[in-house]
Amino acid sequence: MAGLGVGLIGTGYMGKCHALAWNNVAAIFGDVARPRLVRLAERNSALAEARAREFGFAKATSDWRDLLVDPDVDVVSVTTPNQFHADMAIAALEAGKHVWCEKPMATALADAERMEAAARRSGKVAVIGYNYIQNPVMRHLRTLLGQGAIGKVNHVRIEMDEDFMADPEAPFSPKSEAKGGYGALDDFAVHPLSLLWNLFGHVEAVIADLGKPYPDRPLSDGGRRAVENHDQASVLMRLSGGIPAVLMANRAAWGRKGRIALQIFGSHGSILFDQERMNEFQLYRTSDPATEQGFATVLTAPHHKPYDRFIPAPGHSLGFNDLKVIECRELMAAIAGEPFRAVDFANGLRIERAVHAMAQSFRERRWVEVAAG
Amino acid sequence: MAGLGVGLIGTGYMGKCHALAWNNVAAIFGDVARPRLVRLAERNSALAEARAREFGFAKATSDWRDLLVDPDVDVVSVTTPNQFHADMAIAALEAGKHVWCEKPMATALADAERMEAAARRSGKVAVIGYNYIQNPVMRHLRTLLGQGAIGKVNHVRIEMDEDFMADPEAPFSPKSEAKGGYGALDDFAVHPLSLLWNLFGHVEAVIADLGKPYPDRPLSDGGRRAVENHDQASVLMRLSGGIPAVLMANRAAWGRKGRIALQIFGSHGSILFDQERMNEFQLYRTSDPATEQGFATVLTAPHHKPYDRFIPAPGHSLGFNDLKVIECRELMAAIAGEPFRAVDFANGLRIERAVHAMAQSFRERRWVEVAAG
Amino acid sequence: MAGLGVGLIGTGYMGKCHALAWNNVAAIFGDVARPRLVRLAERNSALAEARAREFGFAKATSDWRDLLVDPDVDVVSVTTPNQFHADMAIAALEAGKHVWCEKPMATALADAERMEAAARRSGKVAVIGYNYIQNPVMRHLRTLLGQGAIGKVNHVRIEMDEDFMADPEAPFSPKSEAKGGYGALDDFAVHPLSLLWNLFGHVEAVIADLGKPYPDRPLSDGGRRAVENHDQASVLMRLSGGIPAVLMANRAAWGRKGRIALQIFGSHGSILFDQERMNEFQLYRTSDPATEQGFATVLTAPHHKPYDRFIPAPGHSLGFNDLKVIECRELMAAIAGEPFRAVDFANGLRIERAVHAMAQSFRERRWVEVAAG
Amino acid sequence: MAGLGVGLIGTGYMGKCHALAWNNVAAIFGDVARPRLVRLAERNSALAEARAREFGFAKATSDWRDLLVDPDVDVVSVTTPNQFHADMAIAALEAGKHVWCEKPMATALADAERMEAAARRSGKVAVIGYNYIQNPVMRHLRTLLGQGAIGKVNHVRIEMDEDFMADPEAPFSPKSEAKGGYGALDDFAVHPLSLLWNLFGHVEAVIADLGKPYPDRPLSDGGRRAVENHDQASVLMRLSGGIPAVLMANRAAWGRKGRIALQIFGSHGSILFDQERMNEFQLYRTSDPATEQGFATVLTAPHHKPYDRFIPAPGHSLGFNDLKVIECRELMAAIAGEPFRAVDFANGLRIERAVHAMAQSFRERRWVEVAAG
Repeated sequence: MAGLGVGLIGTGYMGKCHALAWNNVAAIFGDVARPRLVRLAERNSALAEARAREFGFAKATSDWRDLLVDPDVDVVSVTTPNQFHADMAIAALEAGKHVWCEKPMATALADAERMEAAARRSGKVAVIGYNYIQNPVMRHLRTLLGQGAIGKVNHVRIEMDEDFMADPEAPFSPKSEAKGGYGALDDFAVHPLSLLWNLFGHVEAVIADLGKPYPDRPLSDGGRRAVENHDQASVLMRLSGGIPAVLMANRAAWGRKGRIALQIFGSHGSILFDQERMNEFQLYRTSDPATEQGFATVLTAPHHKPYDRFIPAPGHSLGFNDLKVIECRELMAAIAGEPFRAVDFANGLRIERAVHAMAQSFRERRWVEVAAG
Repeated sequence: MAGLGVGLIGTGYMGKCHALAWNNVAAIFGDVARPRLVRLAERNSALAEARAREFGFAKATSDWRDLLVDPDVDVVSVTTPNQFHADMAIAALEAGKHVWCEKPMATALADAERMEAAARRSGKVAVIGYNYIQNPVMRHLRTLLGQGAIGKVNHVRIEMDEDFMADPEAPFSPKSEAKGGYGALDDFAVHPLSLLWNLFGHVEAVIADLGKPYPDRPLSDGGRRAVENHDQASVLMRLSGGIPAVLMANRAAWGRKGRIALQIFGSHGSILFDQERMNEFQLYRTSDPATEQGFATVLTAPHHKPYDRFIPAPGHSLGFNDLKVIECRELMAAIAGEPFRAVDFANGLRIERAVHAMAQSFRERRWVEVAAG
Repeated sequence: MAGLGVGLIGTGYMGKCHALAWNNVAAIFGDVARPRLVRLAERNSALAEARAREFGFAKATSDWRDLLVDPDVDVVSVTTPNQFHADMAIAALEAGKHVWCEKPMATALADAERMEAAARRSGKVAVIGYNYIQNPVMRHLRTLLGQGAIGKVNHVRIEMDEDFMADPEAPFSPKSEAKGGYGALDDFAVHPLSLLWNLFGHVEAVIADLGKPYPDRPLSDGGRRAVENHDQASVLMRLSGGIPAVLMANRAAWGRKGRIALQIFGSHGSILFDQERMNEFQLYRTSDPATEQGFATVLTAPHHKPYDRFIPAPGHSLGFNDLKVIECRELMAAIAGEPFRAVDFANGLRIERAVHAMAQSFRERRWVEVAAG
Repeated sequence: MAGLGVGLIGTGYMGKCHALAWNNVAAIFGDVARPRLVRLAERNSALAEARAREFGFAKATSDWRDLLVDPDVDVVSVTTPNQFHADMAIAALEAGKHVWCEKPMATALADAERMEAAARRSGKVAVIGYNYIQNPVMRHLRTLLGQGAIGKVNHVRIEMDEDFMADPEAPFSPKSEAKGGYGALDDFAVHPLSLLWNLFGHVEAVIADLGKPYPDRPLSDGGRRAVENHDQASVLMRLSGGIPAVLMANRAAWGRKGRIALQIFGSHGSILFDQERMNEFQLYRTSDPATEQGFATVLTAPHHKPYDRFIPAPGHSLGFNDLKVIECRELMAAIAGEPFRAVDFANGLRIERAVHAMAQSFRERRWVEVAAG
């Protein structure tokens, strides 16, 4: 059985991350044919050639459209800057390729809608790279919730915080431009939304408050330029079924590096998780004896699938890049027509809609219902 | 120098807590005259006598008004159920006594307003028992913020969670009656509001979402009764100066026992605190070398005043009851006309107003400005 | 019923701590007569008078022997420096008083033996102030071990670390003199030994290695003086029944403030505890489902007796000084002829013997059996 | 430049781990030629073929000696069971191949000595797979210690605990046979010894106590068989320069899954690390202001090299398998004649000697000096 033919557009960090996944997915899982790394595209020809050698791709090109006409390519990884996602993903789908596109879908809602339509028309697999849902912890939490381990969920809080925008004297960058998006909402909030989608389905209504910690930032010429979007977002939400939830995102949170902290409260217990300690979760169950009830810190282990495919011993830790390998395996399952767990373009669009509803609720200072889609 | 003459109304947990404080404040601090424990009041005469013996009070009575006419009584501790606070505190103030009243001020805003007016008219000291602000950690955080240790604060989150309403099969109790209040808002949110008041001054605007995890609860006769208020509150806030903040309160949060978790983000660092580990706080400073920056877990120590009055060695832990002793010392400072830190009735009223504005914002599904008062 | 008549010798930190306990034990527990604070002794008359007023004692004296002839004194708290313990405790016992003596028993093994003999002869209650065993957590761990919650214990580790000797440039003090003792062994290791005694009974054999982090320390005149004892001790031990254990003590451990960290491993689970977070312990049980097994962090609560006597709500934290109140209650139980849990002089002597065996094992570089006593 | 030609012996977990590293090392680091995966050896021919396809090797064989005569193979990964290490590594070295051999070196000291001699004779690179030292945290700690960040080190504790032997009813296995080794000492203690070697150089003297938590284990036929070695080891040590240290290893420690906990105390600070949270370490520095001193929890980040080669953002976590990729890169540096950090056979032999000295110290119940070698 010949493996999938892979094309890769973009060789920055996410491109490398896709490449690592394509290289190792067969060795890790042992149940899929090793993909054939056909061709990668990178603007600069020399860089493209160098990266092809490093990443193990057979051919390189400086024109991403070459991948679309290459009959050996079955699936295209799109890992370029966000503004290129829509055109590349749509072109690939129209060329009959499956698509694995990095998040977020697009910088404009209309683009996301076009992408979703193209995916629907094509009949091909189209997946967005929301890799945090691939953490074995997240999969296990889904199972626990489904089993009623903490009863009926009645409240959720989720925080996503990093500090790459926390320095008030860091130079003005495109991340602070209005045309780059709302700020924390689309840059960040899509991740916790993907986790909420994974665990609870969709968001019904939102009201957001956005914060701008610094009014302006220095320019290289010595002046300062006004910041045009918001590094902080706080959102009251109602999840599917009316569950009250709070989402907080702050990309100017000193000391937070990769925090995605989840608190789930149910009628018979609670669950805690923090991506900064991605190999553990905490569980409180009322079924324990009263004098010994406490949050148990559970370390990931082979019985938290598919941790076992990476390491046969418990407590030895997966890393961030490993999540991409799991996502790759899910994508391959989707392509093979098997059940899979990943954010397809239809659900990706729902996440985008929630983000735009949040922005609207801030502008209009009112609760906004999210279109069910 | 004769010590203050103390009267105590109520001998439940908070009454005992006041009694412990009055007994030990002189030994702990060593700089005030030992109070004279004059008389305590408790409805049942026999109980009153027994408690007087245990608590070290000279006299007992079953009529709290006896304390008001006792010339030996200088200050009255009011520790009865919330609905009695207003009448007792006002009567004591009008009788020329200082008042130390347990939180919350009253069950109705109008009562709180009457209390504040009575305090103003009396010229006496009138303090509400918001003891969490007396934690040496909280005092030190105030100092740190004042020194600019984390720069200019730009975002705050505070959570207060316990689980005494978490069991869906716990019998219906007055805590679920509408006449007992809003639920988490007044039962709980006043505490985090006292901390926010202490650190940041007053709240400017709010919008709340309230959650009712269980629609009804069992009655002793086998039926069920609808829950009339909300065990959960999530609030977007703007603090003084427009700082965006989020307040979350949940008295149905399984596994949380006394959590009051504070996150303060500034332009040059961050601070974390959790009352469940009340003897430590966490500080992230950008002044540390980049490769060693992290949240430092600082244990309370003699240099975090007035920890030194309790224990001369660091890391040996104060307890919850110790906070009341510190509050007692602050009250004595106030009575002596010295600077003090405690929530007087004027500020207590501001906290009440914020709570009522939150309730209104939920009813009307809109942002509500909080009267500055 | 008249309360016990109390005499107090010494009004430093431990004297204050005893005074606080005597003042509050009746209010806290509600089941004993309030003690009468008869007289305290402190060398300086004026200081003695001042402290009597602060601490609530009726009389003061500068001669501790006055307490022995005072017929109102039933029990004497001995809280003076270690070298005075033996003479004072023995004199008090011979005068027919009960004795509550601070740890350690004495600076020489022979003195400890004399104390134990005096206690035996007197028929009076004689208790050493090993208050860490009074933590409700410790009591609960005893119960858990007794119930077989973690099966049969097969390994124990205990660490006691502080940093008051960690600064290499701190001036030479009596704590570094040979005549003051072995260093970490007697200054420190007695505490973990009291915990081990409480949970597992006595020590059978030991081999210790002692460490001297700094060879000398500065003198005020500019010179330096050689350090004569050891700030660090590491000990391999066999507990009763041959259980292998490790004891580590370091009073030069930067960053540790009051750490007493216990790890207990059994055939069906494990227990962890750290005194720096004295209101919690961690429990791992193999009876939980495999995919959810983890160390549960259990917060102290009213069901961990006698926490309920201090606070009716879980997770609200006792403090270090509260442990002394519990110890006081145990002492009163002993005096009343009821079952009690505290280290009497007989067991205190066993702890001293273990310490001296450790010192011997280091000198002779070999395993030493501890006399069973 | 053609990449290194790789041969792999063994395709169990460690074989897979080596294969993943060889596949990704060039993409991750971007500064070495992509290795050529020449041939793998696995006893069963069909399995060998399947694994070659999965792992990306060009050829397969059921006879590992085929690799030695393959001129395309430059380096051989030896990942077979421990008893085969010596013969395979020596044969490969004698065939002029570089060797990357999994830990431990061998089951007998004499074999380890033969391996070291063969490596010395060959002039080839021979490295043992002690991958825990490759954690960017460990590298950074080395740097910190070298910079004197915590002053002069005066005490070290290290614990390695897992629970795969903790179940008393788990069937008797070769891990409990005397011929399989000492138990925790060689199975486990070699890892913490590799960390100590990395940070502090060699061990001077040791005295160990070994523990056998369960005297026997069930056999499949219903009987029980006596356990012949020790699942627990506790060791007092003197490190190079006489630094007192304690090493504890327990493979029957319920709840511990991959704990390697390190505590390093110095004259101006302390360092803590636990492999179960491999992406963080804790640092206490006396240079911080006294009121804010605490253990800072530092998350790994791009400035902790070579984390940056894996992920460009801080706090996103490397995994256990990533350590093997770093080790692979070090091996390639060694082969290229560049400076490298890995345990070569000479240092591997020193680790083995320390282990055997520990076993001797237990048998003879005395301190044993470790041959400097």
